[in-house]
Amino acid sequence: MTNNKKAVVLSSGGIDSTTVMAIAKDQGFHIFSLSFFYGQRHAIELECAIKIAKIFDAKRHLVLNVDLKSIGGSALTDDIEVPKIKDLQNIDNGIPVTYVPARNTIFLSYALAWAEVIGAFDIFIGVNAVDYSGYPDCRPEFITAFEKMANLATKAGVEQTSTIKIQTPLQHKTKADIIQTGIKLGVDYSITHSCYDPSPEGNACGFCDSCLLRKKGFTDAGVVDPTTYTG
Amino acid sequence: MTNNKKAVVLSSGGIDSTTVMAIAKDQGFHIFSLSFFYGQRHAIELECAIKIAKIFDAKRHLVLNVDLKSIGGSALTDDIEVPKIKDLQNIDNGIPVTYVPARNTIFLSYALAWAEVIGAFDIFIGVNAVDYSGYPDCRPEFITAFEKMANLATKAGVEQTSTIKIQTPLQHKTKADIIQTGIKLGVDYSITHSCYDPSPEGNACGFCDSCLLRKKGFTDAGVVDPTTYTG
Repeated sequence: MTNNKKAVVLSSGGIDSTTVMAIAKDQGFHIFSLSFFYGQRHAIELECAIKIAKIFDAKRHLVLNVDLKSIGGSALTDDIEVPKIKDLQNIDNGIPVTYVPARNTIFLSYALAWAEVIGAFDIFIGVNAVDYSGYPDCRPEFITAFEKMANLATKAGVEQTSTIKIQTPLQHKTKADIIQTGIKLGVDYSITHSCYDPSPEGNACGFCDSCLLRKKGFTDAGVVDPTTYTG
Repeated sequence: MTNNKKAVVLSSGGIDSTTVMAIAKDQGFHIFSLSFFYGQRHAIELECAIKIAKIFDAKRHLVLNVDLKSIGGSALTDDIEVPKIKDLQNIDNGIPVTYVPARNTIFLSYALAWAEVIGAFDIFIGVNAVDYSGYPDCRPEFITAFEKMANLATKAGVEQTSTIKIQTPLQHKTKADIIQTGIKLGVDYSITHSCYDPSPEGNACGFCDSCLLRKKGFTDAGVVDPTTYTG
């Protein structure tokens, strides 16, 4: 019997979404990889996402232009400086300036639209509530609420033919657990990218929230970090 | 005391969203008007939305490009013929081909992002469950689920400073009620546009679902329809 399970996987080219894609693939899903160009400083992540989609033999890789820059309100899309904090102890416990308002809501909404068109009922996203940088739209209660809404928003919900599931296999994993999971599934993390503020050559800054969490993750996992940091 | 209430109002240039804008204005909100170019056949609605934003003295009118065409799956964005049915009795009771998968979810997600950036807590959308063309994402249970999700997705939800409200003042109104409400508030419907498949000059076809619902609405309301129909 042919397996026709399809999954839309949100891919940012980073550790988390790449691990999620490996998990979806391992569960027998055909991968439909979805990335976004939203005016972010670090468009190099899109080049990584293309390579990653190829490695996981994605049926299709779609890059959507989403106009978050017109809306503004984030250091990732505006000309606000990305904080260099040099020490994880100094990560602000509030919601950081790199928060992009409603980003995961918008991304999941597009994933939902695509899932409906291709006949997929599983949407994978690499959010996790442990090393999560303080973004409200990474919390489990947000994901549960989105899933409920998704099932009311679509044909599946009206016709009750199937249920849309927002799959968050990393939800309760630390960055180290995530890396160890990926390593077991054969992920080559050298092709992934995490930095919010890379050099023009695409090297990681080493000091933004995302770089610090990445470094710590590899250290805690006891795995050599394959990243080239400029700082 | 100055009134600083801000509302994001989704504006399609049609009867419903224009009436909603009139209601929001009447309630004392400063209007932030939001429209989308999503590869729809009937981009004339965007010209109407600009005029309408001016009439209601919107603080800002934002048009976002959203890439629904890449996702496909609808007669409004694909090269699928828009059905000409000539008679409301023949409107298909199922979900029509003009349904754009997850469109309201995507539109409301952008509205949520903008609301968060400008500090608005009210998002107005002209959905109604009476003459609603069979779209799942116009139903009250969808709106309620979206609102719940929105409050978990954003800073407001985390910091519990205020509650985001998805305002649907037309939810239980017929098209005739909507038109009568708008007339009382001084809306000039000649500047609105409803047709899914207008002529190159921007005239309404007269036979798509949306034209038929518009015609019937004016007839039932006992108001002269100011629209020029080609058919």
